[in-house]
Amino acid sequence: MSDKIYSYQQLHSFALNAFLKMGCSNEDAILATNVLLSADLRGIDSHGIARLVGYVRLWEVGRINATPNIKIIHETPSTAVVDGDEGLGLVVAPKAMQIAMEKAKQVGTGWVSVKNSNHFGIAGYHAMMALSQDMIGMAMTNASALVAPTYAAEKMLGTNPIAVAVPAGNEAPFVADFATTTAANGKLEIAQRKNESIPTGWAQDAEGNASNDAYILKQGGALLPLGSEKELGSHKGYALGSIVDIFSAVLSGASFGPWAPPFPAYVPMPENMPGEGLGHFLGAMRIDAFRPAADFKLNMDIWLNRFRNAKPATGHDKVYVAGDIERAMEVERMQNGIPLVKEVEKDLIQLAEKLKLDF
Amino acid sequence: MSDKIYSYQQLHSFALNAFLKMGCSNEDAILATNVLLSADLRGIDSHGIARLVGYVRLWEVGRINATPNIKIIHETPSTAVVDGDEGLGLVVAPKAMQIAMEKAKQVGTGWVSVKNSNHFGIAGYHAMMALSQDMIGMAMTNASALVAPTYAAEKMLGTNPIAVAVPAGNEAPFVADFATTTAANGKLEIAQRKNESIPTGWAQDAEGNASNDAYILKQGGALLPLGSEKELGSHKGYALGSIVDIFSAVLSGASFGPWAPPFPAYVPMPENMPGEGLGHFLGAMRIDAFRPAADFKLNMDIWLNRFRNAKPATGHDKVYVAGDIERAMEVERMQNGIPLVKEVEKDLIQLAEKLKLDF
Repeated sequence: MSDKIYSYQQLHSFALNAFLKMGCSNEDAILATNVLLSADLRGIDSHGIARLVGYVRLWEVGRINATPNIKIIHETPSTAVVDGDEGLGLVVAPKAMQIAMEKAKQVGTGWVSVKNSNHFGIAGYHAMMALSQDMIGMAMTNASALVAPTYAAEKMLGTNPIAVAVPAGNEAPFVADFATTTAANGKLEIAQRKNESIPTGWAQDAEGNASNDAYILKQGGALLPLGSEKELGSHKGYALGSIVDIFSAVLSGASFGPWAPPFPAYVPMPENMPGEGLGHFLGAMRIDAFRPAADFKLNMDIWLNRFRNAKPATGHDKVYVAGDIERAMEVERMQNGIPLVKEVEKDLIQLAEKLKLDF
Repeated sequence: MSDKIYSYQQLHSFALNAFLKMGCSNEDAILATNVLLSADLRGIDSHGIARLVGYVRLWEVGRINATPNIKIIHETPSTAVVDGDEGLGLVVAPKAMQIAMEKAKQVGTGWVSVKNSNHFGIAGYHAMMALSQDMIGMAMTNASALVAPTYAAEKMLGTNPIAVAVPAGNEAPFVADFATTTAANGKLEIAQRKNESIPTGWAQDAEGNASNDAYILKQGGALLPLGSEKELGSHKGYALGSIVDIFSAVLSGASFGPWAPPFPAYVPMPENMPGEGLGHFLGAMRIDAFRPAADFKLNMDIWLNRFRNAKPATGHDKVYVAGDIERAMEVERMQNGIPLVKEVEKDLIQLAEKLKLDF
């Protein structure tokens, strides 16, 4: 049986009402909904409306503050640390990105490290905020520990994504947005639903041996850093995940490494947390702080065009630039709707009942 | 037969004299030598004295200017573009990093994109310059095209390394420095010397099929981005290499993508180059632009200690943090000397004859 399709507007209006029920202001609820739904539109289903139930549960147990006092607690002309006051990351992160862009307007670049926040949706949304301002945008976040370092048998890092958005002229922009692991956890969930095994290189068991079991994380296993194993460069993926953790959490005073707060509300908070909440890192660089934006865009168009027209490998039709596939998906889903798998649909129907909303 | 061992001092004095013969100023020759030899000390043999012959050849064909007028051509309080005037990257990059650090002192962070430069040695050297100033340092560079994008059968990107150095308190610092490919080209050269095949995932042939041939790059093949193949996340390594290319070269006005200037002097320059020379990107973030350095270091020590003491996987004794292995190598080689493989030794003896130097 195929998944049922919902229009963007249907899902948007449901999520908006859920955030309003949580007590978010109108403005914050709209912002949170826009960020959340951008994941569904771009085909990153694990980070979209499927997570709405999770956010509500965190709010129910008092780990999300629907009316946060988001404030700068330290700053210089090009930097700031923002305290998210336990707000929705979906609201805290775009506000922090706005601060980064304001600073970039003044002194060329702006860099904001955030503490005391929660899951911020897809990193790409925040990075892409910079595009219309002729800025390069960057966003990263730490997350609850699912990933084992190279040579380790312990979950120490989150999937810690990095997003970088670069404006162009006539060509569609460059938008990278990826977890610093070989495969995101959402891919294991898809394999679980299909009752399939997972490829070697995605995960390991509790002792650190390779595993093809899609359920291995529930048995003490871990995801693997980008590169999968030492011989294929997993120490590089481990370093990238570490950098995201340090920039997002150690620099801001959020909780880091294995102490990052878990997303599922039923998982108890780690003991002896060394910082407050989850951390993000947002950056903006004004193009014309380096060279005239028109010159840059001309070169960026040459870059994008050359890569999009690179000679394909045997068995492939086309070479893509980061963001191309997600952009096409966004056009398709805005027009034809967003499919929801049975489990997500069921979750949302239950959520609607609980919150006394229509779905 | 085992490799002959040379003392750091022996190799330092030879390289210094070679740079002086090229016409570098005393100050520049010392700087270039320090940067170059830091690679040998840290065990990144492909980027150290083994490359000295290559630099001299580039100078002979007029592609390296030994007395460059390195200057800022555009700037804001937190950014600059530097024109390297075809100087040695070994000299241009640390000077650009110095500018980034000066800007960080003034406004919290500094970001410098460099054009018209050459190969800059190991990225880690430049990033580590920030450590003693209580700053986070970053360095990246583009390089001549050896890497095929995901789904492509064409060399479009260099091995485009990223380095990030983070200061700590009592613990040794975090120093990541890695090519954005699965394996660096130096690893293929080692396999060639040993007459061994290479692991699946390092390289592909001219049509884009997996290859285990250590000589495949000479037959139209390419290195693979970190992740090796799409299913294992190679699109992420491809995105990382792209980001390095854009920040280093499109932002500065250097030549980018497949048009990056080749390191071997006998390879003709690409036609219709869209920019000038090789590009670098250097960054510095003052820790206390975010939070008091003492607080940060206390947390960073907790981070480093926790990761260094993570539970090892079966078959391993220890979990490392980025830079640990290179730091131990540096101590070892400073004390016991640096081994040179036969081919490199022979190259250096010939170079000594040509430049009328002792080796």
